[in-house]
Amino acid sequence: MWYQTPFTDLAHITYPVIQAPMAGGATPPELVAVVSNGGGLGSLGAGYMSPQQIQGAIQSIRALTDRPFAVNIFIPEANAADSAQIAASHTLLQPYREALSIAAPPEAAVYTESFEEQMSIILAERVPIVSFTFGGLPSVWIERLKTIGTVIMGTATTVREAMALEQAGVDVVVAQGSEAGGHRGTFLGPAEEALIGTMALIPQIVDAVRVPVIAAGGIMDGRGLVAALVLGASGVQMGTAFLTCSESGVSSLHKAALRENTEDMTMITRAFSGKAARGIRNRFSTELYPYEDQLPQYPVQNTLTQDIRKAASKQGRPEFMSLWAGQGLRLIQDRSAADLIDEIIAQGATLRDRFTQ
Amino acid sequence: MWYQTPFTDLAHITYPVIQAPMAGGATPPELVAVVSNGGGLGSLGAGYMSPQQIQGAIQSIRALTDRPFAVNIFIPEANAADSAQIAASHTLLQPYREALSIAAPPEAAVYTESFEEQMSIILAERVPIVSFTFGGLPSVWIERLKTIGTVIMGTATTVREAMALEQAGVDVVVAQGSEAGGHRGTFLGPAEEALIGTMALIPQIVDAVRVPVIAAGGIMDGRGLVAALVLGASGVQMGTAFLTCSESGVSSLHKAALRENTEDMTMITRAFSGKAARGIRNRFSTELYPYEDQLPQYPVQNTLTQDIRKAASKQGRPEFMSLWAGQGLRLIQDRSAADLIDEIIAQGATLRDRFTQ
Repeated sequence: MWYQTPFTDLAHITYPVIQAPMAGGATPPELVAVVSNGGGLGSLGAGYMSPQQIQGAIQSIRALTDRPFAVNIFIPEANAADSAQIAASHTLLQPYREALSIAAPPEAAVYTESFEEQMSIILAERVPIVSFTFGGLPSVWIERLKTIGTVIMGTATTVREAMALEQAGVDVVVAQGSEAGGHRGTFLGPAEEALIGTMALIPQIVDAVRVPVIAAGGIMDGRGLVAALVLGASGVQMGTAFLTCSESGVSSLHKAALRENTEDMTMITRAFSGKAARGIRNRFSTELYPYEDQLPQYPVQNTLTQDIRKAASKQGRPEFMSLWAGQGLRLIQDRSAADLIDEIIAQGATLRDRFTQ
Repeated sequence: MWYQTPFTDLAHITYPVIQAPMAGGATPPELVAVVSNGGGLGSLGAGYMSPQQIQGAIQSIRALTDRPFAVNIFIPEANAADSAQIAASHTLLQPYREALSIAAPPEAAVYTESFEEQMSIILAERVPIVSFTFGGLPSVWIERLKTIGTVIMGTATTVREAMALEQAGVDVVVAQGSEAGGHRGTFLGPAEEALIGTMALIPQIVDAVRVPVIAAGGIMDGRGLVAALVLGASGVQMGTAFLTCSESGVSSLHKAALRENTEDMTMITRAFSGKAARGIRNRFSTELYPYEDQLPQYPVQNTLTQDIRKAASKQGRPEFMSLWAGQGLRLIQDRSAADLIDEIIAQGATLRDRFTQ
């Protein structure tokens, strides 16, 4: 069949459609399982989850599906911030705390999950597919995962990163184009120099590596899937398209913002987490844009803004929330993730028929 | 045939491949004619040309081909600059003049071609296809061109711009994705908010307008052509891919820079012309990047930097030249434009065969 690729063979799935791993609760076990049951590959965004939460989620997914699924983790970064930088960030954040009537947090302890413990759970649970973002997975973990047959996927935003990942031993490269919503996966060089559009990025990475390449960024429907396959990709990873599905874990405020905005309403911002990410332009990201150079890096800034993002969500203030979104916003539809996959494949088949005439 | 589209029917061409109109001497009549003779659509980038130069070029093209061709013009902008802004720009430019041992120009008269005279020549010459950039063609010219059967193409970087162009009466919309090299065609809102990747932009514009849509930005070969058609485009416009062709009019320094750089080496800069454009990062664009807000707008800054760009080219100093380039740089090849078109179509046919199995 036209949708069978080296990636579907490797991952033992029917359709080359990955629901992107979106951290922060966007990918509950229900979403992951519905996608995998529908023939695609559901992914748990586990970057911010504790080892216990990861284990619980994996068990929930397994209770809902016996098909392959993926777990995504963040490669830790040792970005410290000095107290002056943290104080400067607190000063910049103070107006938003006042607007939300929340006190400044008593201390600025940077909270990060233990990568070793996260990986130990993933290994112990024999997760079929592991994807990772923000760097290279240490070789010791690549070896351990390979021993138990786990398929390993790394995220690249440039050809150079894709080649580094292949060299490190990944089985699959996810090529993240500039259209993509959420955090940029860039790990070699500055993120603003790695904003390559999907149409340009995919064939250049496909030519440079031998492992299957997954296209990500701006792909919303069957047209995007078939176009990506034509460019040489072995599948697509879609985030924004799944965010408005009924099984998605994002808030109704976030869903409403995705529906109400258009392709020209997103921006790349470091203000929420310290790491470049694409989201809908709002008061928080536009007001802090001129000061981005002064903000601490990820994960420090992410910790510093946590109370603001939580309070904003609770109080219904989207102007202070991180509304991650890609550039395909006009193509969003409300439906179940199972229907979305069915429609992608049906549209792909129609395109194929038309093209063969 | 698979490559026949509403656009090829409308433009009376064989293949849905447009050689992009690149101003500043990049598209000599030889290139335009070779592309049109090869079954594509050659385009003369006439934005900076005098009416007499346009007339001469059109006559040269007609001596070399009897196939359809396009002429591209810039919609004029009335951006004045006060003397303080011009003085500030001269101060910023002074180090480059010193590095090139050129005197500051005696006066800063802004040179612009007469749009009315350019259009009168195009009308008198009954040019088969007219494309325009940087705004909307005044309705009086749209009416006059329609009377003589000229096909009219406008450039859009967002859905909103595409809808405005359709409303104004264009026959074809060129959708310029963020990957594209050279000047951004944005005319509604800031250019930095209109950097939509081609993969996301094309289907959203196709859904919003009824006229044929041409995909531009990051398309370098047959894979890009077929992917664009799958996304719903009626053809592609390729610039960077034609710049290294033997018939291209750009300097050997520019060609060498295109060959030596990679997809992550471009940036959007206003420093050369006052208008956002994608080119290879070099000393001029990176050093002036922090001061871009202070520079006069197009066409004033373009006039102010003219002597620097000319001297840099003459003296072999690419670090001061505007090296326009898209994000598909690794896919560049040296060949004649006729061979490039043949290979694009052959590769497209192969992809089609593979996809129908």
